[in-house]
Amino acid sequence: MKPIFSITNSVAHSSARTGILHTDHGDVSTPCFIPVGTYGAVKTQSSEEIAELPSRILLSNTYHLYLRPGIEILTNAGGLHKFMNWDGTILTDSGGFQIFSLEGFRKVTEDGVTFRSHLDGSEHHFTPEKIVDIQRIIGSDFMMMLDVCPPGDADRKTWVNALKTTTNWAKRCMKQYKDTEPIYGYQQILIPIVQGGTDIELRKRSAAELCELEADAYAIGGLAVGEPKTDMLETVECMDAFLPKDKPRYLMGVGTPEDLVNSVSMGVDMFDCVLPTRNARNGQLFTFTGKINIRNSKYKTDFSPIDNNGFSYMSETYTKAYLHHLFKTEEILGYRIATQHNLRFYISLMNTIQKEIRKGSFTPWAKSFISHYIN
Amino acid sequence: MKPIFSITNSVAHSSARTGILHTDHGDVSTPCFIPVGTYGAVKTQSSEEIAELPSRILLSNTYHLYLRPGIEILTNAGGLHKFMNWDGTILTDSGGFQIFSLEGFRKVTEDGVTFRSHLDGSEHHFTPEKIVDIQRIIGSDFMMMLDVCPPGDADRKTWVNALKTTTNWAKRCMKQYKDTEPIYGYQQILIPIVQGGTDIELRKRSAAELCELEADAYAIGGLAVGEPKTDMLETVECMDAFLPKDKPRYLMGVGTPEDLVNSVSMGVDMFDCVLPTRNARNGQLFTFTGKINIRNSKYKTDFSPIDNNGFSYMSETYTKAYLHHLFKTEEILGYRIATQHNLRFYISLMNTIQKEIRKGSFTPWAKSFISHYIN
Repeated sequence: MKPIFSITNSVAHSSARTGILHTDHGDVSTPCFIPVGTYGAVKTQSSEEIAELPSRILLSNTYHLYLRPGIEILTNAGGLHKFMNWDGTILTDSGGFQIFSLEGFRKVTEDGVTFRSHLDGSEHHFTPEKIVDIQRIIGSDFMMMLDVCPPGDADRKTWVNALKTTTNWAKRCMKQYKDTEPIYGYQQILIPIVQGGTDIELRKRSAAELCELEADAYAIGGLAVGEPKTDMLETVECMDAFLPKDKPRYLMGVGTPEDLVNSVSMGVDMFDCVLPTRNARNGQLFTFTGKINIRNSKYKTDFSPIDNNGFSYMSETYTKAYLHHLFKTEEILGYRIATQHNLRFYISLMNTIQKEIRKGSFTPWAKSFISHYIN
Repeated sequence: MKPIFSITNSVAHSSARTGILHTDHGDVSTPCFIPVGTYGAVKTQSSEEIAELPSRILLSNTYHLYLRPGIEILTNAGGLHKFMNWDGTILTDSGGFQIFSLEGFRKVTEDGVTFRSHLDGSEHHFTPEKIVDIQRIIGSDFMMMLDVCPPGDADRKTWVNALKTTTNWAKRCMKQYKDTEPIYGYQQILIPIVQGGTDIELRKRSAAELCELEADAYAIGGLAVGEPKTDMLETVECMDAFLPKDKPRYLMGVGTPEDLVNSVSMGVDMFDCVLPTRNARNGQLFTFTGKINIRNSKYKTDFSPIDNNGFSYMSETYTKAYLHHLFKTEEILGYRIATQHNLRFYISLMNTIQKEIRKGSFTPWAKSFISHYIN
């Protein structure tokens, strides 16, 4: 098996590094941000528009795809790439986080987790093995293991139990992964998820147990789930020492532009988050100096371009006043423009980070960015 | 003033003809279908996508634009073309139809119509002069006169009164049009609207009165408002004799693919309708052999392209099964794909009609189309 990750640059007195993820659907430069397409579509965007982004990777969700369109359709389609007409890299989350966020019935045993669909209340059972099997059918380039993800305000006992089950499930996931072959002829990488809440000792234990599996990449899960921001960043920081240096680290569900810059300096290589897409649909636009909300009445008569930084055609073509109008009239085009802008901002931010790392100026740049960025 | 319309081909034993509308924003081949962008955006589509359609004309609505974004914004923007970043032709409906469709308070006097906004209940007063003034600010290439538009089941007395007021208002619109200049330097054409319900004698009277104004184009209004389909077509048919042959005829708010083919044979040159865009958002797709609804469960496992006729990139790229999935998951991308498909179908239909007229085979083609088209 060819190596899936190569580190290209690192930074003195920082854990920041650039690298390349090698997958059978192309290379992805890191640190990278992965747009979220839960149901096999990045909300409001076409696959062609996502393909035009400078970074050709997207995320989808095993739990959601399992419910809709379902495994039979994905099997008949020949996997998610063909189904959604996307030939870039796909990472699928297992859906563990979603299942543990569901309200109402859910039962965890050593075997797996039983839950009710949020759509029709039907009962389903996921095991570590089944999650691997489903992702084989989806055909994602990066598959996530099934984990137990407690809320941010859980007590230590809950974290300990979640960690224990997560490790056991990870072993079973890895066995199933090794016992099965990709269906569509291209390589799939299975990623374990470190748990342990914001308890450093537990994080160390979880990482150590998962490192024994010798996976090709490691994910940091169970953060950005309601815990204080400083606790989150302290936890990310400690992970750097607990995870192998030569393997990509993926911080799940994070975060704001500041979180990304801070986490890169702590050695994180991959991120995904709904912020740029979800907030776009509420009128929130990200810029290099902070967020704005285009619904604000001050934009009603602002005929300047949405953004002049050159990373989105739509941002340069349409004015703030027009976008304000589209939001006021609830035109779908408004959600499209804002989404395209935010995705391109996030990916442009990652490109800037990569460039600063290569130039050796990442640390002062990061300090300056964070001091100027208004949340 | 240069001629705005030239007839290029006509058909023996039929009133069908091809022609070209000449506007300062480009030529438009007729018979043409005009996509509806009520608030200065064709729902789900960007101006670039509309610009890629083979016919570069769209419709917007004076009443709606007057309420949002409002006249001040449109003035500051320098007109609708600039505001929405569209350099093709724009036709604006006056909004008469919309105002007469409003529930609740509305008062018509000889001076004009007083109504409450459907948005906030605020009271407004439109006069024929004001409607021209607003459209001068919008800067539409084709401006519609203010008319009185009764429902399809109105009695003859209502039609007579509507006709009378419409003629008086038309005279005042024309005077205001002649007394004012375009604001943005390009030509604007003012179009009167023939009323009279489905009463042939009243239609004749309305047309005769409006023809005295020597307008550059004529619209047939007050149809497709709930009257029986046969009455509608009989009315359209009679209009051919009542309107000047050398001027474009615009049938407002019509209609289905069959309506378009039938009306072309009766001498109509221009159409607009929300059907292709509105129905797209309900999953209804138009094809050359009839309508389908992509929500239907039989499309769940149909991995054939949405359409193979080559008129829409998205229709050829994505499968019916994927589009079905997007509708089931309420993904905006689904509405976009369906809208693009339907608009391109409608415009492809008009292109086919033009081609058949040029070839001299329109009449048998139309007969065959209608016999094969399943509603």
